[in-house]
Amino acid sequence: MTERLYLYDTTLRDGQQTQGVLFSAAEKVEIARMLDDLGVDHIEGGWPGANPTDSDFFAAAPKTSATMTAFGMTKRTGRSAENDDVLAAVVNAGTPAVCLVGKTHPFHVRTALGVTLEANLDNIKVSVEHLVKQGKEALFDCEHFFDGYDEDPAYALACAHAARDAGARWIVLCDTNGGTMPTRIAEIVRAVIASGVPGDHLGIHTHNDTEQAVAGSLAAVDAGARQIQGTLNGLGERCGNANLTALIPTLLLKEPYASRYATGIDAENLPSLMKVSRRLDDILNRVPRREAAYVGASAFAHKAGLHASAILKDPTTYEHVPPDAVGNARIVPMSNQAGLSNLRKRLDDLGLTGSDAQLRRILDIVKEREDAGYAYDVAAASFELIARAELGLLTEPFEVKRYRVTVERRKNKYDRMVTVSEAVVVVKVDGEKRLSVSESMDETGSDRGPVNALSKALAKDLGPLQDRISDMRLKDFRVRIMQGGTEAVTRVIIDHEDDAGRRWSTVGVSPNIVDASFEALLDAVRWKLCQAD
Amino acid sequence: MTERLYLYDTTLRDGQQTQGVLFSAAEKVEIARMLDDLGVDHIEGGWPGANPTDSDFFAAAPKTSATMTAFGMTKRTGRSAENDDVLAAVVNAGTPAVCLVGKTHPFHVRTALGVTLEANLDNIKVSVEHLVKQGKEALFDCEHFFDGYDEDPAYALACAHAARDAGARWIVLCDTNGGTMPTRIAEIVRAVIASGVPGDHLGIHTHNDTEQAVAGSLAAVDAGARQIQGTLNGLGERCGNANLTALIPTLLLKEPYASRYATGIDAENLPSLMKVSRRLDDILNRVPRREAAYVGASAFAHKAGLHASAILKDPTTYEHVPPDAVGNARIVPMSNQAGLSNLRKRLDDLGLTGSDAQLRRILDIVKEREDAGYAYDVAAASFELIARAELGLLTEPFEVKRYRVTVERRKNKYDRMVTVSEAVVVVKVDGEKRLSVSESMDETGSDRGPVNALSKALAKDLGPLQDRISDMRLKDFRVRIMQGGTEAVTRVIIDHEDDAGRRWSTVGVSPNIVDASFEALLDAVRWKLCQAD
Repeated sequence: MTERLYLYDTTLRDGQQTQGVLFSAAEKVEIARMLDDLGVDHIEGGWPGANPTDSDFFAAAPKTSATMTAFGMTKRTGRSAENDDVLAAVVNAGTPAVCLVGKTHPFHVRTALGVTLEANLDNIKVSVEHLVKQGKEALFDCEHFFDGYDEDPAYALACAHAARDAGARWIVLCDTNGGTMPTRIAEIVRAVIASGVPGDHLGIHTHNDTEQAVAGSLAAVDAGARQIQGTLNGLGERCGNANLTALIPTLLLKEPYASRYATGIDAENLPSLMKVSRRLDDILNRVPRREAAYVGASAFAHKAGLHASAILKDPTTYEHVPPDAVGNARIVPMSNQAGLSNLRKRLDDLGLTGSDAQLRRILDIVKEREDAGYAYDVAAASFELIARAELGLLTEPFEVKRYRVTVERRKNKYDRMVTVSEAVVVVKVDGEKRLSVSESMDETGSDRGPVNALSKALAKDLGPLQDRISDMRLKDFRVRIMQGGTEAVTRVIIDHEDDAGRRWSTVGVSPNIVDASFEALLDAVRWKLCQAD
Repeated sequence: MTERLYLYDTTLRDGQQTQGVLFSAAEKVEIARMLDDLGVDHIEGGWPGANPTDSDFFAAAPKTSATMTAFGMTKRTGRSAENDDVLAAVVNAGTPAVCLVGKTHPFHVRTALGVTLEANLDNIKVSVEHLVKQGKEALFDCEHFFDGYDEDPAYALACAHAARDAGARWIVLCDTNGGTMPTRIAEIVRAVIASGVPGDHLGIHTHNDTEQAVAGSLAAVDAGARQIQGTLNGLGERCGNANLTALIPTLLLKEPYASRYATGIDAENLPSLMKVSRRLDDILNRVPRREAAYVGASAFAHKAGLHASAILKDPTTYEHVPPDAVGNARIVPMSNQAGLSNLRKRLDDLGLTGSDAQLRRILDIVKEREDAGYAYDVAAASFELIARAELGLLTEPFEVKRYRVTVERRKNKYDRMVTVSEAVVVVKVDGEKRLSVSESMDETGSDRGPVNALSKALAKDLGPLQDRISDMRLKDFRVRIMQGGTEAVTRVIIDHEDDAGRRWSTVGVSPNIVDASFEALLDAVRWKLCQAD
């Protein structure tokens, strides 16, 4: 018999406290829909009245199965709940639930609010009663509850009980500053339950300031709390909130949680998790964290040679959950730490086979080039080109004769300094020489630099091959200066995409950054031409 | 009375299992020095014999106070410890300590090794005995210990005891697949201690696959283990290892750890932690995680309005530790109050003063430019130029009229493809126009790329100013692609040195990498011209 555990998402409110994050109302609608499809229980949409986009969002909030929740704070001292305009804006947002934050730490009541402890208790009681009177599901966020409990357990508990007695459905214990250890969280949650607030009315809200927000949330659940507040990708103030993208798979897939609790997330929806995480990064224009638990691109990448060879025998040797359970995939990267078995598996996945001698030659080339700065665990497409060449499976339908790139900075006709790059690439296709020239301006007239110009010129006219590369798009470009012996060399990794949804990475290395980029660009075109469409 | 807790760093070994990470031997030396200055107890340098760069590193390993440790695996079945060439390469690396990994999970003994449980126990015993005979401090990494204990507690314990009885100083319990919950880690650590392995001989090695590596390590310490294995910035296989950059401040600053334990890290060294973390990111050319616990740029950023106003009254209201304890700084985006006093201190250090209005203008410029991608915490010389300009203390003795860089790849007279760059820079000094041209070849005839050519041309002929810049030398060049709004921009940081021993860093930002480089080169020359010789 499983017990119900509730998930409360605050990506749209506390998640927006992330430095550099500001959602538009339309983005909030899209994220709310994703959260609803995933199956969270509450969606906290923002603080109506405090933020124009939050007010806009609630004015046209999407219909969701999840309980849409507005956030605000308890009424201020010296006015009634009915006459507090800040509270009114929250209540009037028209959501079925409202979550109010209030002080529970005497130090904060005195320092930040400057009111008496009694006045603060009354503010909590009256504000929650006001919500209940309006027919709202009331939640009370106990700000700084754990620090407050450490200073004055009786007062912290009195605040929690004031909200509970006034009719709050959930009393949420917040580790606002993120500094409480998980073991202490568990102790205090047990004390709150012992004081008479039932665990199935207790929520937990943690922050990641000691990198333990997930562990703190689970410790609270172990101690009896039954609601977890968190955000997608762990967005949030300072170091972020408890990361629901990590918590959800643990709750659904890992013991003791999987057998003990049921959540609103359908197990069938779990494989959508990686896409949800990526879409949020897309909206925020953030580079996804490769090492993110469960959903990171590296989360199931087995680089160590010993790991990679065992994975071939049985994936459970080095995987705590199957990657497809969260929509992710296994990667057995090429690297100079990987052995022959690793390589054979890699070729297998590409539909390629070779003799031991051929494989050893490929390994030698990879090792030698990695020593020179190439990185084939990331640049899988460049690796494939090496393998195909050694296996005699690579045709080179065109040849680059030469290229030239010019970067010039000078005054334009308006007497302003401008920079423009121009690239000429000369290729030979079917015995015929073709010259292409491109410059670095994008649609808006902004200079995008020499690599951009070079990329366009290279892909501009490959004659009869042109149709096969016309849907290539340069997606990402990463540069690293390596200390390669006495002098620095530059490594460039370039990602491309095409209309068939392929995404491939190539690598170039040279003391000259333009040359390194050109090598990676050229590999990208060569790889694309290997693919059957 | 505090108990000693030991820190074992594996950044150079397990950290190198991070996808895309491959240290050069020189980078390993630099990181080892940083770790030693910080005060970790063991530095695991790599697997000699398995990796050419690891062998190179041990061949010329730096002298450290920390115990330099080589990593390897227990001897293989069917040969003696003396005749196992893989083991010999590890022992012969000449380190005072050796850490060997071995199987402790019956499933792995059978599936991955294909040997009997008895043979595996014998391999552990004989290998550790061999290390002890050679006078090494022996450590034994119990691979998959927690999963192994769940399958067959008696066998997992037998493996730990085999190593212990053979003389291993440390028995390290590894959660290799990263899937064990902290509470389960604590239970099993207690069981191991109850079985007779003392806690001060027990280490913990966790991975971040459920985002709980830090919590798992602390749970093991709570249960009695006294060594933590981890990596800087949480580098490592898949989702990474336990993050020492997060663990160290928690152990030194947070209860119950601060009063209960002493580590090798001097409290006075703790403020260097942020710099260590950043330098590692620099070496790897990774964008530092803003939200990283303790050391992230956002770790003490107070964005919420309620938080920011309380912080002004008392920083402890929303900070669990003071930011300067780890070398970090508070950011209060709502108010320039903190910024202003920081700035005044910074100008003071440069011997500069200004009015409040001037300082506010400098802050505005810095903020605006940092939003665009500039990094003035690193590029102090570029910052000084902004400050001097606003304070009316900057003369510009020359002007760049234009530049042009060409990169050309073509066949040379021996029919080999070669790349050459050429730069023309036109400056105006004392009303006189001067044209300089340089190419990118170094003394050996190798192409060093367009930025090299540009640097030489810019510093070639400044007429009467030439004497004052002739001892400038370009020392380092770092490139980072940043997500600046809708399109990527490139940030270039350049370090210079001169004969007076000055070392200064400048920054340039542009979608065009050559332009960004030129901006940084130009700042370097302008800064040099400000200095009295």
